Amino acid sequence: MKVVAVVGGVGGARFLLGVKHLLGLPAVGEPPEPSPHEITAVVNTADDMWLHGLRICPDLDSCMYTLGGGIDTERGWGRAGESWVVREELAAYGTEGSWFNLGDRDFATHIVRTRMMRAGYELSDITAALCDRWKPGVRLLPMTDDRVETHVVIDEPGTGERKAVHFQEWWVRYRAEPKAESIVPVGADESSPAPGVVEAITEADIVLIAPSNPVVSVGTVLSVPGVRTALRKTSAPVVGVSPIVRGKAVRGMADACLSAIGVETTAEAVGRHYGSRACSSEGILDGWLVHSGDAADVPNVAVRAVPLMMSDVDATAAMARAAFDLGGVDIA
Amino acid sequence: MKVVAVVGGVGGARFLLGVKHLLGLPAVGEPPEPSPHEITAVVNTADDMWLHGLRICPDLDSCMYTLGGGIDTERGWGRAGESWVVREELAAYGTEGSWFNLGDRDFATHIVRTRMMRAGYELSDITAALCDRWKPGVRLLPMTDDRVETHVVIDEPGTGERKAVHFQEWWVRYRAEPKAESIVPVGADESSPAPGVVEAITEADIVLIAPSNPVVSVGTVLSVPGVRTALRKTSAPVVGVSPIVRGKAVRGMADACLSAIGVETTAEAVGRHYGSRACSSEGILDGWLVHSGDAADVPNVAVRAVPLMMSDVDATAAMARAAFDLGGVDIA
Repeated sequence: MKVVAVVGGVGGARFLLGVKHLLGLPAVGEPPEPSPHEITAVVNTADDMWLHGLRICPDLDSCMYTLGGGIDTERGWGRAGESWVVREELAAYGTEGSWFNLGDRDFATHIVRTRMMRAGYELSDITAALCDRWKPGVRLLPMTDDRVETHVVIDEPGTGERKAVHFQEWWVRYRAEPKAESIVPVGADESSPAPGVVEAITEADIVLIAPSNPVVSVGTVLSVPGVRTALRKTSAPVVGVSPIVRGKAVRGMADACLSAIGVETTAEAVGRHYGSRACSSEGILDGWLVHSGDAADVPNVAVRAVPLMMSDVDATAAMARAAFDLGGVDIA
Repeated sequence: MKVVAVVGGVGGARFLLGVKHLLGLPAVGEPPEPSPHEITAVVNTADDMWLHGLRICPDLDSCMYTLGGGIDTERGWGRAGESWVVREELAAYGTEGSWFNLGDRDFATHIVRTRMMRAGYELSDITAALCDRWKPGVRLLPMTDDRVETHVVIDEPGTGERKAVHFQEWWVRYRAEPKAESIVPVGADESSPAPGVVEAITEADIVLIAPSNPVVSVGTVLSVPGVRTALRKTSAPVVGVSPIVRGKAVRGMADACLSAIGVETTAEAVGRHYGSRACSSEGILDGWLVHSGDAADVPNVAVRAVPLMMSDVDATAAMARAAFDLGGVDIA
């Protein structure tokens, strides 16, 4: 069984734990024996940024740490047992960017990655090298090896000046409070899918769209030329899982992103935004899972309602099973 | 009073503490009032290296941390209250270079420095920026802004293969045990003194050669074209302090370096190696301080014997006072 999942960071990583569990694989780490199942995650990289001269890839790292057993499970991001000495020292030097929390263990990942980038390796190669340590049990592919960074146009707090800031600055520093006038994945137009992305989608038995942010996670993956076409052309069913439950984002501040692109914060609106593969020129979905009790009418997409709270790995595996069912794929 | 000192790392930094104390300045940090005295240290940078994609400047940092109150005084190098999380994590990724100990606090310095280098700043500007935090009370000038790195030709332990390794690899990783066939400051020929170095030497009231390693610290500073000439031409007296006491290096493994260049490990031999400004074509010394009981005949150089152990700041200040006396410079 070849499974592809399009994912963002924290939520996407949790979703992958459930997919692994559903397929009988250990949720964390690699199976002891070679598995007949192959899971490929196409991971958003438009949250990535240069900070302190280091390349930070929050979504790739969230997936890698979560699936490799290194995540801080309480906080949901960053490394377990983390310390913060480097951050304090950088602040003592008066460096900018201290609003973005990087722990000491995390810094080591960015140091290794940056060194490899400077030596000419592509992000996909670097990610594979980092995963040699973490053994996530899922092939983690960056959506692209090219530099794509989401920028958000806001009126800057304090100055009131209209300017474009990096997504992370809006999201983390300003907690998505200033209204996003627009959200643009800068560089996406000139980017190409990373090696393996199109092939994985093309050869998949099922493609899952994780309940990640529809704009700045899934949306940016779709903005890489070639990805949407691959999703539309694959013979595999494509099933999405709504990140919106009862009119609210399950996690994060997805509503602030959705309103910037004129999409309501409802499961139906997001399903329609993704659209039908069969009967729209840009659509990607065959199936759309919404939360029990949520209604969604998405033309030419099979909609089913099941519990969508990823409260633990069993609940998440049940969600994934419902997605397989909706896609007509038998797990055996 | 304008004082210039040519220094290496740990020993040079301690020597500077004594010079500051002698001039009535607080040994650590800046004086509360503007001082009539100006101390400039010309610091060896040929120990510098790229490691983990970061630029490490051991001697500059030893001076900065020591004079700024951040040094681990027991260990003599690195930061007080240091932790080692990043190093452990890098090792977990299987990175090379774990033989060189970098602590978490120290990493922050290298991250800031490297970011500034990547942004196009020169090492001298970066050092000044880092010193905005540390306020060492001494103007720390790298000997050059160019890349100069000491390499050592050895028969590599294990393989027996003859190869050139970075000085730090020989010194720290191999503890200077494999015999140095030659020691070469790679890049020195094409380097220029950093801004301010020649001017400081030219305008000095006295120039001190710290009791640092004569080959890989003082020797590499002298290998930068223009420095030796400035030392020979300045109207200030130039007084050296022997790092060799009773035929042994006071600290470090200077004998392994001296034997590579065919100089005996004696105060006399090192004094003759530096040579007389007056009566040799390459010499730099007017005066040469040796340890009490050590004899040294250095032609056309005034030699005096005083206690040369830098056991505390008072003892070091007394050494510095002897150097001023030997140079005929009155402190008032």
